[in-house]
Amino acid sequence: MSDKERADNVVFIGQKTAMNYVMACLTVLQAGFNEITLKARGKAISRAVDVAEILRNRFMKDKLEVTNIVTGTEMLERQDRGKFSVSTIDITLKTK
Amino acid sequence: MSDKERADNVVFIGQKTAMNYVMACLTVLQAGFNEITLKARGKAISRAVDVAEILRNRFMKDKLEVTNIVTGTEMLERQDRGKFSVSTIDITLKTK
Repeated sequence: MSDKERADNVVFIGQKTAMNYVMACLTVLQAGFNEITLKARGKAISRAVDVAEILRNRFMKDKLEVTNIVTGTEMLERQDRGKFSVSTIDITLKTK
Repeated sequence: MSDKERADNVVFIGQKTAMNYVMACLTVLQAGFNEITLKARGKAISRAVDVAEILRNRFMKDKLEVTNIVTGTEMLERQDRGKFSVSTIDITLKTK
Protein backbone atom coordinates (compact mmCIF):
# COMPACT_ATOMS: atom_id res chain seq x y z
CA MET A 1 0.00 0.00 0.00
CA SER A 2 1.47 3.37 -1.01
CA ASP A 3 1.57 6.40 1.30
CA LYS A 4 -1.14 8.05 -0.73
CA GLU A 5 -3.48 5.08 -0.41
CA ARG A 6 -2.79 4.84 3.30
CA ALA A 7 -3.73 8.47 3.83
CA ASP A 8 -6.92 8.18 1.79
CA ASN A 9 -8.48 5.39 3.83
CA VAL A 10 -7.84 6.91 7.27
CA VAL A 11 -10.68 8.84 8.89
CA PHE A 12 -9.80 11.05 11.87
CA ILE A 13 -12.61 11.18 14.40
CA GLY A 14 -13.07 14.59 16.06
CA GLN A 15 -15.85 16.57 17.72
CA LYS A 16 -18.61 16.33 15.09
CA THR A 17 -21.48 13.85 15.46
CA ALA A 18 -20.79 10.18 14.79
CA MET A 19 -23.01 10.27 11.70
CA ASN A 20 -20.67 12.79 10.03
CA TYR A 21 -17.83 10.28 10.25
CA VAL A 22 -20.05 7.35 9.24
CA MET A 23 -20.78 9.23 6.00
CA ALA A 24 -17.05 9.98 5.50
CA CYS A 25 -16.30 6.25 5.91
CA LEU A 26 -19.01 5.21 3.46
CA THR A 27 -17.50 7.63 0.92
CA VAL A 28 -14.08 6.02 1.38
CA LEU A 29 -15.53 2.52 0.97
CA GLN A 30 -17.49 3.59 -2.12
CA ALA A 31 -14.26 4.93 -3.63
CA GLY A 32 -13.12 1.30 -3.74
CA PHE A 33 -11.10 0.79 -0.57
CA ASN A 34 -11.73 -2.52 1.21
CA GLU A 35 -10.08 -1.40 4.43
CA ILE A 36 -10.54 1.71 6.54
CA THR A 37 -8.86 2.95 9.73
CA LEU A 38 -10.56 5.19 12.27
CA LYS A 39 -8.18 7.24 14.41
CA ALA A 40 -9.18 9.14 17.54
CA ARG A 41 -7.66 10.73 20.63
CA GLY A 42 -9.01 11.53 24.09
CA LYS A 43 -12.76 11.90 24.44
CA ALA A 44 -13.31 11.24 20.73
CA ILE A 45 -12.32 7.60 21.34
CA SER A 46 -15.90 6.75 22.40
CA ARG A 47 -17.17 8.31 19.18
CA ALA A 48 -14.74 6.24 17.09
CA VAL A 49 -16.22 3.07 18.64
CA ASP A 50 -19.73 4.42 17.90
CA VAL A 51 -18.77 5.00 14.24
CA ALA A 52 -17.34 1.48 13.90
CA GLU A 53 -20.43 -0.06 15.51
CA ILE A 54 -22.90 1.96 13.40
CA LEU A 55 -21.06 0.98 10.20
CA ARG A 56 -20.80 -2.68 11.18
CA ASN A 57 -24.38 -3.09 12.46
CA ARG A 58 -26.40 -0.75 10.28
CA PHE A 59 -24.96 0.64 7.05
CA MET A 60 -22.63 -2.25 6.21
CA LYS A 61 -24.45 -5.02 8.08
CA ASP A 62 -22.65 -8.38 7.62
CA LYS A 63 -20.32 -6.76 5.06
CA LEU A 64 -17.71 -5.17 7.34
CA GLU A 65 -15.71 -6.51 10.28
CA VAL A 66 -13.31 -5.07 12.82
CA THR A 67 -9.92 -6.63 12.11
CA ASN A 68 -7.70 -4.75 14.56
CA ILE A 69 -7.91 -2.34 17.48
CA VAL A 70 -4.76 -0.74 18.89
CA THR A 71 -4.57 1.72 21.78
CA GLY A 72 -1.67 4.03 22.50
CA THR A 73 -0.49 7.16 24.28
CA GLU A 74 0.72 10.38 22.66
CA MET A 75 2.61 13.17 24.41
CA LEU A 76 1.29 16.60 23.49
CA GLU A 77 2.45 20.06 24.50
CA ARG A 78 0.40 23.23 24.71
CA GLN A 79 1.40 26.66 25.91
CA ASP A 80 -1.50 26.87 28.36
CA ARG A 81 -1.08 23.47 30.01
CA GLY A 82 2.45 22.28 29.29
CA LYS A 83 3.15 18.64 28.42
CA PHE A 84 0.39 16.10 28.85
CA SER A 85 -0.41 12.65 27.55
CA VAL A 86 -3.52 11.60 25.67
CA SER A 87 -4.82 8.13 24.85
CA THR A 88 -5.33 7.12 21.23
CA ILE A 89 -7.20 4.38 19.39
CA ASP A 90 -6.88 2.99 15.86
CA ILE A 91 -9.77 0.81 14.71
CA THR A 92 -9.28 -1.04 11.43
CA LEU A 93 -12.33 -2.32 9.56
CA LYS A 94 -12.31 -4.53 6.49
CA THR A 95 -15.03 -5.49 4.03
CA LYS A 96 -15.94 -9.20 4.09
CA MET B 1 -12.17 -20.19 35.14
CA SER B 2 -15.15 -20.30 37.49
CA ASP B 3 -17.92 -17.69 37.46
CA LYS B 4 -16.66 -16.32 40.73
CA GLU B 5 -13.13 -15.82 39.42
CA ARG B 6 -14.44 -14.26 36.23
CA ALA B 7 -16.46 -11.71 38.19
CA ASP B 8 -13.54 -10.84 40.44
CA ASN B 9 -11.16 -9.75 37.69
CA VAL B 10 -13.61 -7.56 35.78
CA VAL B 11 -13.53 -3.82 36.47
CA PHE B 12 -16.50 -1.78 35.25
CA ILE B 13 -15.45 1.71 34.20
CA GLY B 14 -17.97 4.42 35.03
CA GLN B 15 -17.98 8.17 35.72
CA LYS B 16 -15.24 8.45 38.37
CA THR B 17 -11.74 9.63 37.46
CA ALA B 18 -9.45 7.20 35.62
CA MET B 19 -7.17 6.97 38.65
CA ASN B 20 -9.99 5.43 40.75
CA TYR B 21 -10.18 2.53 38.30
CA VAL B 22 -6.40 2.24 37.99
CA MET B 23 -6.30 1.65 41.76
CA ALA B 24 -9.14 -0.90 41.53
CA CYS B 25 -7.18 -2.76 38.83
CA LEU B 26 -3.97 -2.76 40.86
CA THR B 27 -5.92 -4.25 43.78
CA VAL B 28 -7.20 -7.04 41.52
CA LEU B 29 -3.69 -7.76 40.21
CA GLN B 30 -2.26 -7.75 43.74
CA ALA B 31 -4.91 -10.29 44.75
CA GLY B 32 -3.09 -12.69 42.42
CA PHE B 33 -4.98 -12.46 39.10
CA ASN B 34 -2.77 -12.38 36.01
CA GLU B 35 -5.56 -11.17 33.73
CA ILE B 36 -8.02 -8.33 34.08
CA THR B 37 -10.89 -7.11 31.89
CA LEU B 38 -12.04 -3.50 31.75
CA LYS B 39 -15.64 -3.03 30.63
CA ALA B 40 -17.18 0.29 29.64
CA ARG B 41 -20.17 1.71 27.78
CA GLY B 42 -20.82 4.99 25.99
CA LYS B 43 -18.69 7.97 26.99
CA ALA B 44 -16.82 5.90 29.60
CA ILE B 45 -15.11 4.02 26.72
CA SER B 46 -12.47 6.77 26.44
CA ARG B 47 -11.81 6.44 30.17
CA ALA B 48 -11.37 2.66 29.87
CA VAL B 49 -8.64 3.25 27.27
CA ASP B 50 -7.04 5.82 29.61
CA VAL B 51 -7.05 3.27 32.46
CA ALA B 52 -5.44 0.60 30.27
CA GLU B 53 -2.78 3.03 29.02
CA ILE B 54 -1.96 4.37 32.51
CA LEU B 55 -1.58 0.81 33.85
CA ARG B 56 0.51 -0.34 30.91
CA ASN B 57 2.79 2.71 30.71
CA ARG B 58 3.13 3.83 34.31
CA PHE B 59 2.13 1.53 37.17
CA MET B 60 2.84 -1.80 35.46
CA LYS B 61 5.41 -0.62 32.94
CA ASP B 62 6.70 -3.55 30.83
CA LYS B 63 4.74 -5.99 33.05
CA LEU B 64 1.26 -5.78 31.50
CA GLU B 65 0.06 -6.02 27.93
CA VAL B 66 -3.25 -5.60 26.12
CA THR B 67 -4.21 -9.04 24.80
CA ASN B 68 -7.68 -8.36 23.40
CA ILE B 69 -10.05 -5.49 22.63
CA VAL B 70 -13.64 -6.17 21.60
CA THR B 71 -16.29 -3.58 20.77
CA GLY B 72 -20.02 -4.20 20.74
CA THR B 73 -23.47 -2.66 20.88
CA GLU B 74 -26.06 -3.08 23.63
CA MET B 75 -29.73 -2.21 23.40
CA LEU B 76 -30.98 -0.37 26.46
CA GLU B 77 -34.43 0.87 27.39
CA ARG B 78 -35.32 3.75 29.69
CA GLN B 79 -38.71 5.20 30.49
CA ASP B 80 -37.62 8.73 29.56
CA ARG B 81 -36.03 7.96 26.19
CA GLY B 82 -37.35 4.58 25.07
CA LYS B 83 -35.05 2.06 23.39
CA PHE B 84 -31.57 3.14 22.35
CA SER B 85 -28.27 1.51 21.56
CA VAL B 86 -24.96 2.14 23.27
CA SER B 87 -21.44 1.09 22.23
CA THR B 88 -19.38 -1.08 24.55
CA ILE B 89 -15.72 -2.03 24.89
CA ASP B 90 -13.97 -4.89 26.68
CA ILE B 91 -10.21 -4.47 27.11
CA THR B 92 -8.31 -7.50 28.39
CA LEU B 93 -4.88 -7.03 29.94
CA LYS B 94 -2.49 -9.77 30.98
CA THR B 95 0.67 -9.71 33.08
CA LYS B 96 3.84 -10.61 31.13
